[in-house]
Amino acid sequence: MKRNRSKDEYIIIVGCGRLGSHLANLLSKSRKSVVVIDKEEKSFGRLSEDFSGFTIEADAIEIDTLLQAKIDKADVVVTTTNDDNTNIMIAQIAKSIYGVPKVIARLFEPSRQKVYEELEIETLCPTVLSAIEFKNIIVEQEVGEK
Amino acid sequence: MKRNRSKDEYIIIVGCGRLGSHLANLLSKSRKSVVVIDKEEKSFGRLSEDFSGFTIEADAIEIDTLLQAKIDKADVVVTTTNDDNTNIMIAQIAKSIYGVPKVIARLFEPSRQKVYEELEIETLCPTVLSAIEFKNIIVEQEVGEK
Repeated sequence: MKRNRSKDEYIIIVGCGRLGSHLANLLSKSRKSVVVIDKEEKSFGRLSEDFSGFTIEADAIEIDTLLQAKIDKADVVVTTTNDDNTNIMIAQIAKSIYGVPKVIARLFEPSRQKVYEELEIETLCPTVLSAIEFKNIIVEQEVGEK
Repeated sequence: MKRNRSKDEYIIIVGCGRLGSHLANLLSKSRKSVVVIDKEEKSFGRLSEDFSGFTIEADAIEIDTLLQAKIDKADVVVTTTNDDNTNIMIAQIAKSIYGVPKVIARLFEPSRQKVYEELEIETLCPTVLSAIEFKNIIVEQEVGEK
């Protein structure tokens, strides 16, 4: 399944916790069309006042929720919940069933990264990313002081 | 308080969760001297088999623990626990009382970043970092497809 993509990209974010909401705010600022799905309404309180996207209060594990979010029209699906299994399951549904061109899953447990790579789901692991950044800050200072 | 720093840098990591342990493993691989402090012994199970540093099972909020970790000799202190207040309190002790040259605190709640900047404690927020990285992945693909 191949789709034409335009500047009016349509992005679905699953999970409106710290990461999901921050990403939604960033993308909204960049004038992307964003829909955020979360089971708890209060999570949407993290969205900025000028967030221009839509919110859906429902469980994204349910196909009905994904259909309501128009997953068949999505250019990008990002799963950011606190649960690795939820993230990867929804990522797989988005990719395999609905042929979403770009699917990225947040990954909690770094040791599982390779398994997900085998499923050909792109993952981003905040822990690995942050550890590398911390290390760079420490090592950078060293170089600067030589 | 100014100290000479050598390649044999001495780094204290507070918290041996996913982030703390991953960072400890990275720094140990880079042949840094590392001490990791955590309240729970089982947390040290996350350290790799070839981790060459030391571990201290104790509460880093206690001054005795920090003294046991030789905080007065540390070149770098990184606080990585799951609690913002704990991270910032230990970071302040390291900086103000023991004059540790480089202190970095993990920050959970992005909205608090500015407050901590006023305290002149360097912070790293995995949420902000990850959201930017997710956004870059999404935007990068767009550019590639133009």
